Amino acid sequence: MKKITFYSLMTLAVLGFMSVNSYAQVVEDFKTSSTTQTGKEYPMVNSEGRVRVQISAPEAKFVQIDIGAVKYDLVQDENGVWTGESAPQDEGFHYYQLNIDGASVPDPASLYYYGASRWGSGIEIPAHDQDFYALKNVPHGQVREVYYYSETNNTMRHCFIYTPPGYETNLTQRYPVLYLQHGGGENEYGWPSQGRTGLIMDNLIAEGKANPFIIVMDNGSWTMERPRQRTAQERPAPGESWPPRNWAEGFMNTLIKDIIPMVDKSFRTLADGRHRAMAGLSMGGMQTKAITLANPDVFSHVGIFSGGTITVEDVQNTPGFRDNNKLVFISFGSRELENRRPGFGGDPREETEKLKESGMNAHFYVSPDTAHEWQSWRRSLYQFAPLLFKD
Amino acid sequence: MKKITFYSLMTLAVLGFMSVNSYAQVVEDFKTSSTTQTGKEYPMVNSEGRVRVQISAPEAKFVQIDIGAVKYDLVQDENGVWTGESAPQDEGFHYYQLNIDGASVPDPASLYYYGASRWGSGIEIPAHDQDFYALKNVPHGQVREVYYYSETNNTMRHCFIYTPPGYETNLTQRYPVLYLQHGGGENEYGWPSQGRTGLIMDNLIAEGKANPFIIVMDNGSWTMERPRQRTAQERPAPGESWPPRNWAEGFMNTLIKDIIPMVDKSFRTLADGRHRAMAGLSMGGMQTKAITLANPDVFSHVGIFSGGTITVEDVQNTPGFRDNNKLVFISFGSRELENRRPGFGGDPREETEKLKESGMNAHFYVSPDTAHEWQSWRRSLYQFAPLLFKD
Repeated sequence: MKKITFYSLMTLAVLGFMSVNSYAQVVEDFKTSSTTQTGKEYPMVNSEGRVRVQISAPEAKFVQIDIGAVKYDLVQDENGVWTGESAPQDEGFHYYQLNIDGASVPDPASLYYYGASRWGSGIEIPAHDQDFYALKNVPHGQVREVYYYSETNNTMRHCFIYTPPGYETNLTQRYPVLYLQHGGGENEYGWPSQGRTGLIMDNLIAEGKANPFIIVMDNGSWTMERPRQRTAQERPAPGESWPPRNWAEGFMNTLIKDIIPMVDKSFRTLADGRHRAMAGLSMGGMQTKAITLANPDVFSHVGIFSGGTITVEDVQNTPGFRDNNKLVFISFGSRELENRRPGFGGDPREETEKLKESGMNAHFYVSPDTAHEWQSWRRSLYQFAPLLFKD
Repeated sequence: MKKITFYSLMTLAVLGFMSVNSYAQVVEDFKTSSTTQTGKEYPMVNSEGRVRVQISAPEAKFVQIDIGAVKYDLVQDENGVWTGESAPQDEGFHYYQLNIDGASVPDPASLYYYGASRWGSGIEIPAHDQDFYALKNVPHGQVREVYYYSETNNTMRHCFIYTPPGYETNLTQRYPVLYLQHGGGENEYGWPSQGRTGLIMDNLIAEGKANPFIIVMDNGSWTMERPRQRTAQERPAPGESWPPRNWAEGFMNTLIKDIIPMVDKSFRTLADGRHRAMAGLSMGGMQTKAITLANPDVFSHVGIFSGGTITVEDVQNTPGFRDNNKLVFISFGSRELENRRPGFGGDPREETEKLKESGMNAHFYVSPDTAHEWQSWRRSLYQFAPLLFKD
């Protein structure tokens, strides 16, 4: 047995009193982040994936960066400017905030994203595979902001719809549609913004790796009855909480009764189940499972990113699913499989393997060295899209 | 002569030491703002147009709301929660921020907008005429996010393009185009977001008050040479300052050589000067004046919102302008005319009247009780759009 020394106990005691501070050797090759606001120098990221922030707060007692559920102290200089950095973060996109004397606030120098049930700071850690979602001089589709009236909710709703390159010029062509859902505490801005859906698709299509299709990105949380004439940027009724009641059923009604008919009316779609896919991340994956199992004639391609699995038993219990389905795609970040989240059923790789053995077109993908976070979901879309609508 | 009493001097002395505090009687009918984040209660606005904010900052020495270039103190309760409000603000949209122990930060509970050269908090003060930019159950156009390659700047650029209701279904119809520019310290998000361009046009078209046309909202500041493969959200070269050098000429080259050809290629436009308009606010208005005077064959309709005038002399000095021009529209907020900003030439109402007397189709509009701010520009668009492309 390892001997516990007085010294190690003292160290633990001291650490217990301290906020986390990055006393570790820090590699001094910080560069301004791609998610820093135009004209600003900080936040910066170094080759280890540390995030360094800076803010002037002359009268503050303490300032911290709060990222990955850990707070790191900043240090004040003689001009009242605070600077400090986090431990190394995973490749890809992360939400974060600053803590100034107990107030949790966005970093005034970052771009803002919706997640964790709030608009706030996000940071991009350059990834070894970032080329697949880079902005390139290739033909680009368009992401369109669309307002429509929802009978189910008796209100105006709001979504983003990606149309692929060529949609504007090939005016007789009709396209399949993927309905792509965000996670809990996120909204319809997630996939087009931090998900980089448009750029991922533009690059895949330019390389001939995916067929062009339409992608509808709507709000899967926003399904409560609302007064008329609220914009998507406006607030819900007082007392509404997340997750909403009946999150799967509520969104299912909206999707089946309002969104799909609106899309098939307003866009040049191939309006049948064979040319319709649904996918989602986390809560959106759980919604995808519930909705596609309940409507096997409406969707033929299914993607569940960090949101559970579809089992052989699920398929056996759902008449029509096996006959109509063309694809089941299950994915996770590798760190999720290492520290498996509860409530997702059995081992997802084994479940997917069994589904494949039962004769379904089932695929399993693991995003290397990422957790329950956007880099896992960008990669999942990148792997999923080429498998869609292949016949 | 009025006698200066000891008491009034004391009052002045005390005020000199204080930050502004709203000791005035405050009407307690605050409601959560339409620009408050989903699920949050503050910021709120009352019937006087005061903005009340609230934030938890248990360790802070002071917290202020900073709006309209004035800082107002918040008061801390026993739980470390700070609350306070501003003086009454003009109807419409305003940028603001919080000051926590000397740190200027966004309010974590507001939606975010780009202006004053930063992404940060904005607040909507309900206006007596807000119906013209309300979200209604009428046919809606789409605002599309478009990436394109710019030869002039040797980089990918980014803009928003509004297509009117019916554009998706009337596939043989071609449309006129308005190029609509933001102000200094703003970007291409200004008109589609806080400008509410899409909703203003949808409502005008639904009421039969305006002809449908396309609106291109691009970035008039972002005209420097940039490395390839930066997104619009990414930062400029280090040391770049605003305003950019050659702001008018730089954007003119980009507009004439890259943007207009891209739009005429990618959208179903009526691609001649007679069916092309340019308008802008503040810096965008100055760019509009410079660019339309330099290219009288390219644009026939001109709108300058809070950005100066076009004089009879300007027209006389520009061969071809009078013959091709169909409309000159000049507007200001009433408070701008009361406290006229320097550099905008003579009295704008008189100049416009002279232009009209000289035989031009010139219009002058004053937005009541607003300053150099978005409510003036929303109203200007609402007045300008019905005058466009009438023959």
